[in-house]
Amino acid sequence: MEFEVKKTFGKARLGVMKLHHGAVETPVFMPVGTNASVKLLTPRDLEEAGAEIILSNTFHLMLKPGVEIIKLHRGLHNFMGWKRPILTDSGGFQVFSLPKIRIDDEGVVFRSPIDGSKVFLNPEISMEVQIALGSDICMVFDHCPVPDADYEEVKEATERTYRWALRSKKAFKTENQALFGIVQGGIYPDLRRESALQLTSIGFDGYAIGGLSIGEERSLTLEMTEVTVEFLPEDKPRYFMGGGSPELILELVDRGVDMFDSVFPTRIARHGTALTWNGKLNLKASYNKRSLEPVDERCGCYTCKNFTRSYIHHLFDRGEVLGQILLTIHNINFMISLMKEVRRSIESGTFKELKSKVVEVYSSGGVNV
Amino acid sequence: MEFEVKKTFGKARLGVMKLHHGAVETPVFMPVGTNASVKLLTPRDLEEAGAEIILSNTFHLMLKPGVEIIKLHRGLHNFMGWKRPILTDSGGFQVFSLPKIRIDDEGVVFRSPIDGSKVFLNPEISMEVQIALGSDICMVFDHCPVPDADYEEVKEATERTYRWALRSKKAFKTENQALFGIVQGGIYPDLRRESALQLTSIGFDGYAIGGLSIGEERSLTLEMTEVTVEFLPEDKPRYFMGGGSPELILELVDRGVDMFDSVFPTRIARHGTALTWNGKLNLKASYNKRSLEPVDERCGCYTCKNFTRSYIHHLFDRGEVLGQILLTIHNINFMISLMKEVRRSIESGTFKELKSKVVEVYSSGGVNV
Repeated sequence: MEFEVKKTFGKARLGVMKLHHGAVETPVFMPVGTNASVKLLTPRDLEEAGAEIILSNTFHLMLKPGVEIIKLHRGLHNFMGWKRPILTDSGGFQVFSLPKIRIDDEGVVFRSPIDGSKVFLNPEISMEVQIALGSDICMVFDHCPVPDADYEEVKEATERTYRWALRSKKAFKTENQALFGIVQGGIYPDLRRESALQLTSIGFDGYAIGGLSIGEERSLTLEMTEVTVEFLPEDKPRYFMGGGSPELILELVDRGVDMFDSVFPTRIARHGTALTWNGKLNLKASYNKRSLEPVDERCGCYTCKNFTRSYIHHLFDRGEVLGQILLTIHNINFMISLMKEVRRSIESGTFKELKSKVVEVYSSGGVNV
Repeated sequence: MEFEVKKTFGKARLGVMKLHHGAVETPVFMPVGTNASVKLLTPRDLEEAGAEIILSNTFHLMLKPGVEIIKLHRGLHNFMGWKRPILTDSGGFQVFSLPKIRIDDEGVVFRSPIDGSKVFLNPEISMEVQIALGSDICMVFDHCPVPDADYEEVKEATERTYRWALRSKKAFKTENQALFGIVQGGIYPDLRRESALQLTSIGFDGYAIGGLSIGEERSLTLEMTEVTVEFLPEDKPRYFMGGGSPELILELVDRGVDMFDSVFPTRIARHGTALTWNGKLNLKASYNKRSLEPVDERCGCYTCKNFTRSYIHHLFDRGEVLGQILLTIHNINFMISLMKEVRRSIESGTFKELKSKVVEVYSSGGVNV
């Protein structure tokens, strides 16, 4: 892959990644399609929203439908009908989030959340699966420590992440696919620094910042990101894993991060909350019952062009899933538009003003909630 | 409204209705959007499928969101973002399907299925609501007897239906909206005949056959339809209420019926079953796990052009609602295409062959189930 930083504003960067299935402008937000489906959206909805890249999950896909089925389709793109780039997580995050039976240098034995059976995953298997999926960007298999891990545990996970990154790179024999390293180190600056130096010494197409935004204080999230970015090369994309609220994204772009993913916009849509340029909007709230306004008057998405808040309120009131669909369409459109505005503001030197505005309306919870 | 029969083949008719929001070619299938939403579909999905008219429900809409909210939107079309014709049921079917507190000539007191409160409905209120909704086709408020009603009860309901039809017509002071009468009479030929004569003596823009396909033998459904159609005028559209399986539609077209509605295609889609030119197809069945075929190779819908049976099987397996969405898109496309084929076959004189084929694959349950 190629990556070019076209312009900077402070630490914020305007860039472009050239991947096998197309170019991606950064900073970018990646909608999440864990089970090879961005919940409630068709690939067409995503294309119309302007999504340039989506994320899917190695661990979930290897369980269901299984690699064999996706190989039958000649890869994940054909399987799910998505023609643009895909990034796949390695399964390392599941070391953090799922019950484990055994974890050592060899790999991890999980309890399958689907049927309780044992599942073994290690760097070699993760690479093999991601190569079979045909992901444009693959992630190294890492050890993401749990949130309450102490220093020694995080240190061990960080060192294992390094050893597994070496094995991931060695096993990554493929063409037209990129491999990103993942920096761990928890909330410890020295471990973050060490992990960043270790990963960059191996050399990857890009670098992710893992193990953050998992419950720690926001100030710590930002501090750890700063510490990490300091030791990452200028000429490679930087990806903050699992952070996707508007205000967090703006803070992280300001600290030199280029890529983001989160289930947040799609999840809150299913619960009746829209993201708008004035903050969050609760469509289930009774004050929207009679509102003839669109969800966001500044938005040009299908939902905002065709439906009132009142109609969407009614759909949620009656449990009609169309309400969730229309808000998911809107929220993904909003996130993509937000990132376009972010890029434009870096280009034009107005990033600070945009950031102040977004952080303000989102930190206050939104004027309309 | 205008209605023209352009061609006939036996009793089957090719026609066109000119309604306020557009022309509708008959025989036609109307997707059902009870709560002002055809479940899981956007209006755009419906337009792309070629749907020319949809059905919605007066009783449900007057409870939620209430007429006042829809008036704020200047009618149901604006409220739900649907630009083509709408037919609304009168609430009479709910006399049959919901718990009642009182029913007499004045009207019906229902127990609201939403909050248990008392709801009063009669011909005058039903007309007032349907006029406010702005439906292209309104239905008279009728008394649809329950399936186990005896002769005397059905006779009473049929006579009340006549009196209520008179009152409905009298209360129907509006422009650009059509009013259809509803023939009742249960499974009694003499009552069907009487009801048809009574309704036609009043004079309506079209005539519905109500109270059938509610559990009676299929042969009886067809016989009662024949008895009714015999006494309906040639120059008005005939609408069979609530019947929408492919084989039933073909049988009824063959007996001179022009309009159909049913939740059947959308409901079975949500349960994993597709309608195809080879019969029903169960996408949840394990033999579809590895199938790289589209749902129906003869279908040109978004689902069939972009996804394999294997992918849709996977979505249902993982509980991803996108599977339900994609099958709903397909089933509605199938129904609209089926009706196009029906019209073409009446035009070209091949209706009998089409009917035999559809009845055969659907009566056998479908080769793929």
